[in-house]
Amino acid sequence: MRARVVSGMRPTGALHLGHYHGALKNWVQLQDANDCFFLVADWHALTTSSQHEDALERRVYDMVIDWLAAGIDPDRATLFIQSRLPEHAELFTLLAMHTPLSWLERTPAYKDWQARCAEPGNQREPASYGFLGYPLLQAADILLYRGTLVPVGEDQAPHVEITREVARRFNHRHGREVLPEPATLLTDTPRLPGLDGDKMSKSSNHGAHNAIAMRDTPAQVTDKLRRMPTDPQRVRRDDPGEPARCPVWPLHQVYSDDSTRQALAQGCRSAGIGCLDCKQPLIDAIIREQQPWHERAEAWLSQPKQLQWVVELGTERARTVARQTLKDVREAMGLAYR
Amino acid sequence: MRARVVSGMRPTGALHLGHYHGALKNWVQLQDANDCFFLVADWHALTTSSQHEDALERRVYDMVIDWLAAGIDPDRATLFIQSRLPEHAELFTLLAMHTPLSWLERTPAYKDWQARCAEPGNQREPASYGFLGYPLLQAADILLYRGTLVPVGEDQAPHVEITREVARRFNHRHGREVLPEPATLLTDTPRLPGLDGDKMSKSSNHGAHNAIAMRDTPAQVTDKLRRMPTDPQRVRRDDPGEPARCPVWPLHQVYSDDSTRQALAQGCRSAGIGCLDCKQPLIDAIIREQQPWHERAEAWLSQPKQLQWVVELGTERARTVARQTLKDVREAMGLAYR
Repeated sequence: MRARVVSGMRPTGALHLGHYHGALKNWVQLQDANDCFFLVADWHALTTSSQHEDALERRVYDMVIDWLAAGIDPDRATLFIQSRLPEHAELFTLLAMHTPLSWLERTPAYKDWQARCAEPGNQREPASYGFLGYPLLQAADILLYRGTLVPVGEDQAPHVEITREVARRFNHRHGREVLPEPATLLTDTPRLPGLDGDKMSKSSNHGAHNAIAMRDTPAQVTDKLRRMPTDPQRVRRDDPGEPARCPVWPLHQVYSDDSTRQALAQGCRSAGIGCLDCKQPLIDAIIREQQPWHERAEAWLSQPKQLQWVVELGTERARTVARQTLKDVREAMGLAYR
Repeated sequence: MRARVVSGMRPTGALHLGHYHGALKNWVQLQDANDCFFLVADWHALTTSSQHEDALERRVYDMVIDWLAAGIDPDRATLFIQSRLPEHAELFTLLAMHTPLSWLERTPAYKDWQARCAEPGNQREPASYGFLGYPLLQAADILLYRGTLVPVGEDQAPHVEITREVARRFNHRHGREVLPEPATLLTDTPRLPGLDGDKMSKSSNHGAHNAIAMRDTPAQVTDKLRRMPTDPQRVRRDDPGEPARCPVWPLHQVYSDDSTRQALAQGCRSAGIGCLDCKQPLIDAIIREQQPWHERAEAWLSQPKQLQWVVELGTERARTVARQTLKDVREAMGLAYR
C-alpha cells in the first residue's frame, strides 16, 4: 500500500553532503512507491536563526534546487512552502488548545536550549513561545496532510512521537479517527565529518567552509578534501597512520566499498600510501556523485519560471489536501459554522 | 481622530446584565466616533471550556444577537468570527517566534491556573500550550487590525500590555512601525451581583440561574429578583436592614439614581419599607432597559438570513484589513516570496 509520506527541512540554504546522505537520498527512494509531501519548513527557520531573516527567500530556493538536483521529481512528489499555507498555523493553533505544556517541555531540543541558557556567559536569547511549540508545529505539518509515514533521523524521532500523541488525543476526544497516527520511519543518517573533523554542518563556527555543498564544483571538492586534516599522529609521509583517528575516514564509510577500504586502511597503517592517495578515490567518488546533481540544477536554474511553477503547483496541491483536513478538524471541534 | 477600536468576547452564549454594563454598553458608545472591530473570540473558548464544544455555534449566535440587541450597529461596526479568519492563527504563529516564554508565564491568568492545579484535590486539566499562549493570540487579534484603542476591564489590562510589548518588539526588530502599539482604554466594569450575591456569572456553580440574561422576559426578571436573598440579618419585615449587607444593593448602584437610593436606604434602615418594595423599582428599571433589546433581538431572530449576512459581511471586511496587515508583516520578516 502506498503510504502518505510527509517530511520537511528548514531552509538553511544550499545543502551539503550530510543532508543528501542523511535525508534526501532516502526521499528520492521513497517517492517511487509512495505519495510524498516534502515541505520547506520556513516558519521553523524563524524560531532560532533570526539573524538571517533577510536572506530567507534565497535560502528557500537554494534548498529547493538542491532537492530537485538530488532527484526529487515534482511530477511524483509534492514540493511546497509552509509559509504559503496559513492552514499550518490554523491547525497548530487548534491543536495547541488541548496539548499539555508538559509534552512540549520535555522534548530534548527544548531541555537542551534551557540548559544552555543557564550556562554562565550564555549569549542565547531566552526560549520563545514559538520555540517551545516547535514540535507541535511539526505535528501540524504532518497531520495536515494525514501523513502515515514520517522518515526521520533518530534525533527527530521524539517529535514524531508527540505527533502521534497529539493525533491520538484529538481522535479520542472526538470519538473517531480524524487524524491518523503516523508511523516513524527511522532512517539511517550517517554522520558525515565536517572538513574540520566535526559533524558536517553549516552552523558550525567554521561557516560554510566546514561542509562540502552538494553543488560545489569539482575544483572546490578537490581543494576542500585535499586541505582536510587527517590522522594528527601521522605527521610525515613515512609515519604509519590509523584510520580510526582520521577525520577523513568516515567519508570512506559512505563512499568506498569494503575492498577499497581494506586496501586503504592497510596502506595507511603501513605508510604504504600517503594521505593524498587515500583522499583521491574519495574525491573521484564525490565528483561522480555530484555530476547528475549539477546537470539537474543547471537545467532548473536556466528556467526560473519553471522552478516557480513547480513550487506553485506543489503548494496548490498541498492546499487542497490541507483544506480538506481542516474542514474535518473544524467539524469535529464544532467549529464548522459560518 | 477616529481610533481603530478592537475588542472581543468569548462566545459564552446568551449574555447577562454584567456583560452589558461591563462591556457592551461601552462598545455601543464607542461605535459612534470610532472604527470598531468586534470579534467573536471562538478559538479562545476552546482553551478552557472544552466540555461544551458541541454547542459552540449556538453560543456564538446567541452572543451575536445580544450584541445587536444591545445596539451594536453592523453598518458602523465590524462584527466577525475569529475562527473564520486563519489570518489570526498565522499572525499568532509568526509572533510566537520572537515572544519570550517568560512574558506569557508571568500573566495573572496563567499563574492563577497553575496555582489552582497545584491545590490538593484539583480536578483541572493541566495547562495547555494554547492556554499559555492565550494572551499572544489576543495580541494577534488586536494587531491584525492595527487596533489603536482597546477597551478592557482592569483584569484584562495586562494582556493589552503584552500586546504593546509584542508590537514594540516586532517594530524594533524590523526597524519600522509595522504594528502600532494600541492604547488601553480602561472601562468601568461595575461588579453586578449574581442572584446568590456573588458576582453575576454563568460559570458559577449555580448555573444560568445566577444571572439575569439580557433577554430574560419581564416575568423571569420579576421572579428572579423577587427570589433574590437580601440582608441576612433582616429576617422579619419589622427588622431594620442595612444596604451594605444586602446583595441586591449593588444593583441599585447601577440602576437607581441618588435620590431613589437615599430614600430606599432610609426605608430599609428604618424598616419603613419591605425588601419587595425595595426591589420593585429595580425590576421596573431592568424591564425598561431590556425593552429595546427585546425588540431588536426579535427583529434579528425573525430574519436569520439577514443575521448570517451581517456576520458574513463583517468577516469579509475584517479579512481585507487582516490580509493587508499580514502582507506587511510577511514583507518585514522576509517571507514575502512565493
